[in-house]
Amino acid sequence: MSDDPKGAPRYMGIPTFMRTPYTPDGKGLDIALAGVPYDGGVTNRPGARHGPRQIRDLSSLTRSIHHVSKLKPFDVARVGDVGDVPFTSVYDPEKTMDEITDFFSTIHKTGAMPLTAGGDHSITFPIMRAIASLKKPIGMVHVDAHTDTWGPFQGSKFHHGGPFRLAVEAGILDPKRTVQIGIRGAQNTDEGWNYSRDSGMRVIFMEEFTEIGVQAVIAEARRVVGDGPTYISFDVDGLDPIYAPGTGTPEIGGITTIEAQALLRGLGGLDLVGADVVEVSPPFDQTGNTAIVAATMMFEILCLLAERVSTR
Amino acid sequence: MSDDPKGAPRYMGIPTFMRTPYTPDGKGLDIALAGVPYDGGVTNRPGARHGPRQIRDLSSLTRSIHHVSKLKPFDVARVGDVGDVPFTSVYDPEKTMDEITDFFSTIHKTGAMPLTAGGDHSITFPIMRAIASLKKPIGMVHVDAHTDTWGPFQGSKFHHGGPFRLAVEAGILDPKRTVQIGIRGAQNTDEGWNYSRDSGMRVIFMEEFTEIGVQAVIAEARRVVGDGPTYISFDVDGLDPIYAPGTGTPEIGGITTIEAQALLRGLGGLDLVGADVVEVSPPFDQTGNTAIVAATMMFEILCLLAERVSTR
Amino acid sequence: MSDDPKGAPRYMGIPTFMRTPYTPDGKGLDIALAGVPYDGGVTNRPGARHGPRQIRDLSSLTRSIHHVSKLKPFDVARVGDVGDVPFTSVYDPEKTMDEITDFFSTIHKTGAMPLTAGGDHSITFPIMRAIASLKKPIGMVHVDAHTDTWGPFQGSKFHHGGPFRLAVEAGILDPKRTVQIGIRGAQNTDEGWNYSRDSGMRVIFMEEFTEIGVQAVIAEARRVVGDGPTYISFDVDGLDPIYAPGTGTPEIGGITTIEAQALLRGLGGLDLVGADVVEVSPPFDQTGNTAIVAATMMFEILCLLAERVSTR
Amino acid sequence: MSDDPKGAPRYMGIPTFMRTPYTPDGKGLDIALAGVPYDGGVTNRPGARHGPRQIRDLSSLTRSIHHVSKLKPFDVARVGDVGDVPFTSVYDPEKTMDEITDFFSTIHKTGAMPLTAGGDHSITFPIMRAIASLKKPIGMVHVDAHTDTWGPFQGSKFHHGGPFRLAVEAGILDPKRTVQIGIRGAQNTDEGWNYSRDSGMRVIFMEEFTEIGVQAVIAEARRVVGDGPTYISFDVDGLDPIYAPGTGTPEIGGITTIEAQALLRGLGGLDLVGADVVEVSPPFDQTGNTAIVAATMMFEILCLLAERVSTR
Amino acid sequence: MSDDPKGAPRYMGIPTFMRTPYTPDGKGLDIALAGVPYDGGVTNRPGARHGPRQIRDLSSLTRSIHHVSKLKPFDVARVGDVGDVPFTSVYDPEKTMDEITDFFSTIHKTGAMPLTAGGDHSITFPIMRAIASLKKPIGMVHVDAHTDTWGPFQGSKFHHGGPFRLAVEAGILDPKRTVQIGIRGAQNTDEGWNYSRDSGMRVIFMEEFTEIGVQAVIAEARRVVGDGPTYISFDVDGLDPIYAPGTGTPEIGGITTIEAQALLRGLGGLDLVGADVVEVSPPFDQTGNTAIVAATMMFEILCLLAERVSTR
Amino acid sequence: MSDDPKGAPRYMGIPTFMRTPYTPDGKGLDIALAGVPYDGGVTNRPGARHGPRQIRDLSSLTRSIHHVSKLKPFDVARVGDVGDVPFTSVYDPEKTMDEITDFFSTIHKTGAMPLTAGGDHSITFPIMRAIASLKKPIGMVHVDAHTDTWGPFQGSKFHHGGPFRLAVEAGILDPKRTVQIGIRGAQNTDEGWNYSRDSGMRVIFMEEFTEIGVQAVIAEARRVVGDGPTYISFDVDGLDPIYAPGTGTPEIGGITTIEAQALLRGLGGLDLVGADVVEVSPPFDQTGNTAIVAATMMFEILCLLAERVSTR
Repeated sequence: MSDDPKGAPRYMGIPTFMRTPYTPDGKGLDIALAGVPYDGGVTNRPGARHGPRQIRDLSSLTRSIHHVSKLKPFDVARVGDVGDVPFTSVYDPEKTMDEITDFFSTIHKTGAMPLTAGGDHSITFPIMRAIASLKKPIGMVHVDAHTDTWGPFQGSKFHHGGPFRLAVEAGILDPKRTVQIGIRGAQNTDEGWNYSRDSGMRVIFMEEFTEIGVQAVIAEARRVVGDGPTYISFDVDGLDPIYAPGTGTPEIGGITTIEAQALLRGLGGLDLVGADVVEVSPPFDQTGNTAIVAATMMFEILCLLAERVSTR
Repeated sequence: MSDDPKGAPRYMGIPTFMRTPYTPDGKGLDIALAGVPYDGGVTNRPGARHGPRQIRDLSSLTRSIHHVSKLKPFDVARVGDVGDVPFTSVYDPEKTMDEITDFFSTIHKTGAMPLTAGGDHSITFPIMRAIASLKKPIGMVHVDAHTDTWGPFQGSKFHHGGPFRLAVEAGILDPKRTVQIGIRGAQNTDEGWNYSRDSGMRVIFMEEFTEIGVQAVIAEARRVVGDGPTYISFDVDGLDPIYAPGTGTPEIGGITTIEAQALLRGLGGLDLVGADVVEVSPPFDQTGNTAIVAATMMFEILCLLAERVSTR
Repeated sequence: MSDDPKGAPRYMGIPTFMRTPYTPDGKGLDIALAGVPYDGGVTNRPGARHGPRQIRDLSSLTRSIHHVSKLKPFDVARVGDVGDVPFTSVYDPEKTMDEITDFFSTIHKTGAMPLTAGGDHSITFPIMRAIASLKKPIGMVHVDAHTDTWGPFQGSKFHHGGPFRLAVEAGILDPKRTVQIGIRGAQNTDEGWNYSRDSGMRVIFMEEFTEIGVQAVIAEARRVVGDGPTYISFDVDGLDPIYAPGTGTPEIGGITTIEAQALLRGLGGLDLVGADVVEVSPPFDQTGNTAIVAATMMFEILCLLAERVSTR
Repeated sequence: MSDDPKGAPRYMGIPTFMRTPYTPDGKGLDIALAGVPYDGGVTNRPGARHGPRQIRDLSSLTRSIHHVSKLKPFDVARVGDVGDVPFTSVYDPEKTMDEITDFFSTIHKTGAMPLTAGGDHSITFPIMRAIASLKKPIGMVHVDAHTDTWGPFQGSKFHHGGPFRLAVEAGILDPKRTVQIGIRGAQNTDEGWNYSRDSGMRVIFMEEFTEIGVQAVIAEARRVVGDGPTYISFDVDGLDPIYAPGTGTPEIGGITTIEAQALLRGLGGLDLVGADVVEVSPPFDQTGNTAIVAATMMFEILCLLAERVSTR
Repeated sequence: MSDDPKGAPRYMGIPTFMRTPYTPDGKGLDIALAGVPYDGGVTNRPGARHGPRQIRDLSSLTRSIHHVSKLKPFDVARVGDVGDVPFTSVYDPEKTMDEITDFFSTIHKTGAMPLTAGGDHSITFPIMRAIASLKKPIGMVHVDAHTDTWGPFQGSKFHHGGPFRLAVEAGILDPKRTVQIGIRGAQNTDEGWNYSRDSGMRVIFMEEFTEIGVQAVIAEARRVVGDGPTYISFDVDGLDPIYAPGTGTPEIGGITTIEAQALLRGLGGLDLVGADVVEVSPPFDQTGNTAIVAATMMFEILCLLAERVSTR
Repeated sequence: MSDDPKGAPRYMGIPTFMRTPYTPDGKGLDIALAGVPYDGGVTNRPGARHGPRQIRDLSSLTRSIHHVSKLKPFDVARVGDVGDVPFTSVYDPEKTMDEITDFFSTIHKTGAMPLTAGGDHSITFPIMRAIASLKKPIGMVHVDAHTDTWGPFQGSKFHHGGPFRLAVEAGILDPKRTVQIGIRGAQNTDEGWNYSRDSGMRVIFMEEFTEIGVQAVIAEARRVVGDGPTYISFDVDGLDPIYAPGTGTPEIGGITTIEAQALLRGLGGLDLVGADVVEVSPPFDQTGNTAIVAATMMFEILCLLAERVSTR
């Protein structure tokens, strides 16, 4: 955020992510803020295609000095908004997956780390494909109500309940370096739960989270991902729906924002390679709070990435 | 509506369309009320997949004696709710089109005329395919802001802007017996407008509607479709967005509900073969008025169909 | 409205109707603005009990010089807010009816004419009972989607669909001096329509209204009520739901606010004895526009009453 | 839920409770899901009459395997939707109470345990009357912000603040086997608090809940109800209004959904005889989250009932 | 709009006005789309400061070929988004007025005509000051519910009810070449009405508009402004609140969007020098329809300006 | 609240704060409930000018016996609603500050303690000026997400981010007896944080709050303010936005209402001299929950003030 800190009112101007400069080619950036306005993978309520717009708008509320770490991410890293994936085939999930990978591959080649606003969760698999092109497999800290390791639904494997199964099967994601946090809610089969467990992922159900507390969850997450390359995927439905009603598959009984902020702050020093915040569906977000929460989580993650940039 | 007319409060019970009996197989019905919860064909704002549910809920507000004609549709025709198309491949537009056709073919074989709640407008092409299996091509009275005769978008021809081009190309729809009413709004190309005109459709732009008035529009519509088999397709975005804010591609400056009701009432005596009301998107319909309007238009059309049934 | 006309911002202060002085005993008033927060008579969606509050709040938007007549109602008549009927038996419709009559009888004895904000339409019968104690029967100009002349529903005759049948049966309302304007919508029986017609009321269905226009409707209304004592009862569902979504039994295809304002302005010089605006249900009025419309209709009627006061 | 678990999208089809088969006569069911669309007992904001419809709609989000216990309630018990109480006298609270009792007596005779969606809390007394016909008095685990043991209000004893006083007075409910959890908020008299205490109920005010924690609350609840027949009555206003804004008498500072889920899961093995979830008022529930919460609490309770069925 | 006409979905990308290129310096533009996010001049409900953002977002719905004139404004004129006025003193109305004038003076010097999204109506005076620097006074077609020619309110003359009095007094606006259309609603004094009349403005009250019709209004507007330089100022509260609920001082009984579109289309060939659309207040615009209407009116005006550009 | 405790329904009547008598001159009151409908000091989203109205409306939900202390505040203290500050210069922040001070000075002279509903936080400085006229400086318990000790913004020092810096500089507020609770969120400079620290205020950031718990926070607050005169200033954005979405500058990760209630209850026995609850912005408060929370916090504070009154 290059504006004078006491400058213009925050409701002014063209809404880029966190009011960073619009930098379509990503050149010269350390961290690329990107949008993937796609919800073709949802299984129930759509609308996440409108997520990047609303997050951009409400991300103007974010500011530049983290109040705990006092880090100034825009001072220690070059941050810009690279715009949205330019889709040409939104009715074809497989082509769409490829276009997402192409877009992030281009960014990846500039050396910038991507921090993405979704879009439904199906977008994480093609982002990972782009990021993992050099060093793979990568690990993951995954916040979500669902494991997203289910098999095909309605004949497609590119739905938002399956990206991490695809990523493991493609050799991109290391299940043994994957931790899933906040999982909860009834399911119609136990297939996804079993896949996560059997492939070696560490699944921290919400009940365990509540019991052991966020500091223990942080310790466990750090233990699982270790010092290898790690991606953060933050599905807003991992939070309780009171924080994020604007989402496609809400599940009550989730993580608080205080816990989520603590969790993210506890991930400092990892070898982060990218991150996303997904499943914000503005048509179901009447107060805009879901987008505010998503933007603030992006800011928390931005600080982690900026710290990583500044120390490598 | 078989309940005692002064009976139970209208907010009670399982919400079928207009509180008609749930009749999944359609057996013994003259008119089949059906839902097609699909919005995979939209080009902008999704949500119409939730249309059938909300229309069912608010259709409880409709009643049984038409206040102008005094027709009692539930007395002169057997009317039931046949449920929704049981989709198995929602991510594959082409298969979805086939499943819609299969569902309506089954209904068609029972002899029932379908009156459908969408869903986005891409569903009308596969419904027509089912209906037109015996006598074809059929004519159409089409209320809409858009001609929906555009070519492929994002690589697909099964989007909600193209069903009537597909229907003409398939020999199902007779463009010379097609009238499009309420068309308006800027476009990025003139391709769809040209296709409608060049294929022989009668396009009544909104400006002409305003100038000549609804009675002249009715006369022109009747002249165009004549006494051949005719389908009514009613896109709620043909109405002004003040009546139907809950829709995917609103366009200001549209038809009033008084005009629309007059228009529908003016279609009595046509050889109707089916109808639909489409593009209700509940996530954008905060007051529910769009669904009330859609349910009432369905009731107006039901009276036309019931009159047709009772006189054949 | 006694404030300095260019004075305090309109969003300030205790919200009485149109910012008039709170005058609980009604002493010294020519016109008494009253609230009847009761919705125990609805047959479907409740919430009109909250109507007086929301109308009071948004009536701060009204001002003091009518822009067409240039009448200054607060200069030519003493106007005050007499508060709400102090209910003690809201679960007992019959006792509630009596309490409403008692309250308005007390006001009536002070010589003030009541202009009431409902509440559901069942409140008009007991108000009329109070007003008609001296000279009866009275005539009525009635704007509504429904005739409200139906018989018992769910065992009760004190529901919001029956007040005018009760009033005729009680000898309070002269059906031959009653005009019902804007009637429309399907019904489950034709009983109410028939009662209105058979008792001699002049029913102007919406279709006739649209055909003959508001000036002819005014002429007909004046012809019907003549120069006898006349009450105005304005149900906001007489308007199209786009103007008044916040109501219990919306019916599409109604009167516009421009027509309603013209209609009310056309009633000058009648021997008015009171009026009400009913069926505003705030829980269904998300924008507040229904309450703004109701407050403005109350202001239009206030000007009629003030003119009447100033000339008697 | 008899559908194929990976089957149709959840937004499809006629919305019965949890997509169970509509079984109006209740024959052959172990557990009967019922609706009581009545809000004639509220003391403030109405709307709960619309609760069953909205809960049915959003209960499609629930699924079939509990993620903690792994119980499959639809496998171990026959569950169906028996529809709503067919009211004939909604303006007469006493007759309405009788009709509710009649409806549930009929279900009770089939041997099915009822799990009911309200409606306001006045419905629990007549439900209990039906259930307690054989073995009485019964005990109760009651989650609520209010003790609902107040005397008459506005001349009626059948309001939503008094059902448990009525039940004790009728000898149906054993106050010594009754625990009230989550009580809080100012009152205008201390009569209800005193009644609960003096009759022997165990009242766990919210402050005690916060202090001792949910596990101690569970232990205390189990101690109070013991192994006698026990009913669960869950008023959504026991939850904090952030989880359940759509309710008539919200009271801040309430239970979290995580606590409520834990509490319900802690009631396994009791001799349960029925349950309800009440006070969902859709007009005040703009995001639908209240209904999602209510549906999920019904699912938690369903698992308890199903376990009870499977072990008796 | 330079994108390929059948290209990217309209919900994608950085939301500039009508998806035009962001051109902060305005260099090379024929028409400059600008935002003035200021509502410090409102007398009642604030929020118009958020107008430019929401209009930008929803202006993505507009497209590139006008469906009546077939004009392609982006082909015949160079159009860009110049961003928002960079305020530095938002608490000081007078300085703010100067900053607005400075911003538009800079644009004016590039030769671009401004088409502005407000902001409240107080912004039009300083915009006019910039535009009228060369040739003055200018004429105006003014659509509004209020004449906005009132004197000081709460001690300030820079409120949104006074810009045109200021402009006349400053010799910028020629009252004899000013037409005010859609005026209506009660006022607390007749000062503004009198000022408009006495200074020579032609005021077309809503009642006259309804009586003579839009074509006669167009003729009268053209007669008044003649062939001198003319500005268009479009306050969305000139429309009925059903079209524009999201505004600060709604007044029922206004212009329809069909009338407004016809009116604007009737202004072709005038010597236009700039235009604005003001008073969109997103916090009161829950459906977004106000912003859609405003964006579409901007598109209608853009076509007028583009035609003017292409013929000079 | 002087009504009969089991009396009239709470949705009835003219909405004064907590249904107390309207007492414009404040004579004879111990505690004066006042409104300051001003939001001219906000830096981002406006609307708090509408706060007093909405809080008055929803404060009808509060009642008269505190459920923990059993205190009956309306019995031990004379409480009335003194209305709103009668602004005459809302566009001039400095004059407005003076008018607020004048209003509260008048109340102060009657001997009543003010409990104020804002308005934005800039109003606290002028209120303090009035209160501190006799004994100063005063101490403060300040709940907020922001320290509000920033310097000028956009050229003004009277914005809502600076009141406590002004109060310290004016010698009214003793920074060493000031505790700020709930502070969090990124900032664009560290100036305000530093000012609070350097002037000697005790700042309890949210992270510390979470770590030490509310009882330790209470102890620390009591230690800081000691037994000198103390003001309570409660900004609803100190709460998490899930409790108070209707506010101008929401910041996620805040205090719960249970914690806030506990905190306030822990302040008994202090030498309280007044209090306020600020920053409720109804246009952003779609469910009304923010206003319910604010009204309930006012009730909690009222009990503190009433206890203070009863013991002095």
